[in-house]
Amino acid sequence: MTQQFWNGDVDELLRVGTRTEGGTRTRTGTGTGTGTGNGFDLAAIDPASTPGTTANKKAGQAELAASAQELRELQERLFAQSRAGAPDRVLVVLQAMDAAGKGGIVNHVFAQLEPHGLQLTAFKSPTEEERAHDFLWRVAPRVPGPGVIGLFDRSHYEDVLIQRVREFAPPEEIERRYGAIVEFERGLAESGTRIVKIMLHVSPEEQAERLGDRLADPAKHWKYNPGDVDERQKWPEYMAAFQLAIERTNAPHAPWFVVPANSKWYARVAVQRIVIAALRGIDPQWPSAEFDVAAEQARLAATAGLRWPG
Amino acid sequence: MTQQFWNGDVDELLRVGTRTEGGTRTRTGTGTGTGTGNGFDLAAIDPASTPGTTANKKAGQAELAASAQELRELQERLFAQSRAGAPDRVLVVLQAMDAAGKGGIVNHVFAQLEPHGLQLTAFKSPTEEERAHDFLWRVAPRVPGPGVIGLFDRSHYEDVLIQRVREFAPPEEIERRYGAIVEFERGLAESGTRIVKIMLHVSPEEQAERLGDRLADPAKHWKYNPGDVDERQKWPEYMAAFQLAIERTNAPHAPWFVVPANSKWYARVAVQRIVIAALRGIDPQWPSAEFDVAAEQARLAATAGLRWPG
Repeated sequence: MTQQFWNGDVDELLRVGTRTEGGTRTRTGTGTGTGTGNGFDLAAIDPASTPGTTANKKAGQAELAASAQELRELQERLFAQSRAGAPDRVLVVLQAMDAAGKGGIVNHVFAQLEPHGLQLTAFKSPTEEERAHDFLWRVAPRVPGPGVIGLFDRSHYEDVLIQRVREFAPPEEIERRYGAIVEFERGLAESGTRIVKIMLHVSPEEQAERLGDRLADPAKHWKYNPGDVDERQKWPEYMAAFQLAIERTNAPHAPWFVVPANSKWYARVAVQRIVIAALRGIDPQWPSAEFDVAAEQARLAATAGLRWPG
Repeated sequence: MTQQFWNGDVDELLRVGTRTEGGTRTRTGTGTGTGTGNGFDLAAIDPASTPGTTANKKAGQAELAASAQELRELQERLFAQSRAGAPDRVLVVLQAMDAAGKGGIVNHVFAQLEPHGLQLTAFKSPTEEERAHDFLWRVAPRVPGPGVIGLFDRSHYEDVLIQRVREFAPPEEIERRYGAIVEFERGLAESGTRIVKIMLHVSPEEQAERLGDRLADPAKHWKYNPGDVDERQKWPEYMAAFQLAIERTNAPHAPWFVVPANSKWYARVAVQRIVIAALRGIDPQWPSAEFDVAAEQARLAATAGLRWPG
């Protein structure tokens, strides 16, 4: 199924800083920035493209359903091995413009996971208390523990995206944050966290259509915020902020993936595949029993006569 | 679909303190206990029964899948209306002996929900810090906020179940806790929480089979704990503790449901139906727009020419 659907390694194709042929046009480069993303060019990635596959929506939806089982088994192994002390865990960071499909990714990809092993955090505008602390203060307690897949729906990257565009923090503070993020993520990686950072990349035309749909449907009004149009008007500034954030914080231990997201079905299978690749990279194993199996079978057998009510 | 599958109102059939004919044999009564469960008799409920339906496993699995959509829509409405200030939320408490199927309920029923609106807490043996506080100290911060479905996989009821059976707390302290729980849950209910407390009820024979399966499969060893057999040996004491906990804490604002759980498929559809009934009871509504829809459509239209890269 997967072999037929994907004609390339989408995990590599969408990863920033990887040389690719065709598909996305991410350029490889070296540079002096904090991150390893120099040479990356967001403007060269077509939000309507579907790198790695020539399939259509119907096949995409079938692939999404068919790969759920592998995703779940990998997750269960990850969770199981942590019970025996393995430190591995996964952190997925999801960033995007409004209406780019984050909600759909959560409900169609991450909803395939077992709830026990998923820790989802939706970061909102910081509260007064949060603003009184360093920007990472509210993030640190939400990183996943061993065996868990953590999902950040928005994240500490808001602090170099909207905060940059809206000038909520002075330029030198924004500048400081890129380095702070790299160090923060390095610490997570060194304690066993496989980090995957995903930008869902839509075009402004596609966003307009989706916001229009929300306005047209009373059951979707609650998803609409007048501020969405305010932010939309700053599109070039946001893209510049994404470009810079990706350049400065891309790292081997915390790579960025730019996922073309005009096609919802494509973004979903691509994210599913990226998460599966991260789990395969960990290659989690069922832990061996920390007890004597035969002895336990005997103890259990000795209780075989138990009846209730007696 | 639902009409054909259920031949009774399973939400009522399984609710403690409701008079029922056939199916479960929960007796109705009145009493002087803290709760309204006097007259309830756990021993009269057959763990192998399937109250409310004469269907088989295949039909049960079909029903579970078919009702996912209603469950999700109700959940989305609950979440949506909270954005506009509605206080309603749901707390599901799940209690059971080991291997009774809690994990399956989480992975087959609650996994149907949208992750954003589900808050799952698995309560483990209390830590040293938790033991230094009142038993509700660790529970209070985990109750769901508006719009959220909270699921407690084990809960404050452990403090009157294993703690009673194992005498981890003196009898007068256990006695105090029933009343404390009733008051705690009353406070939750008064702030908009619909509480549903579920005991998955298996027979000791069924448990032996499931524990044996875990011991026979290396991929399931991580789910097995030698302590499971120790607790199993105290089966009558546990059932007495459940009986008492249910009697003393059943209340109109926080009812108990005893779900026969020897058939996994039955327990899953029954729990799904109980949660759906709780959500229907709230009857959540799409909130009306807090903005001028036409004005927003005009603002959006004014940005129609936006292109990027420009």
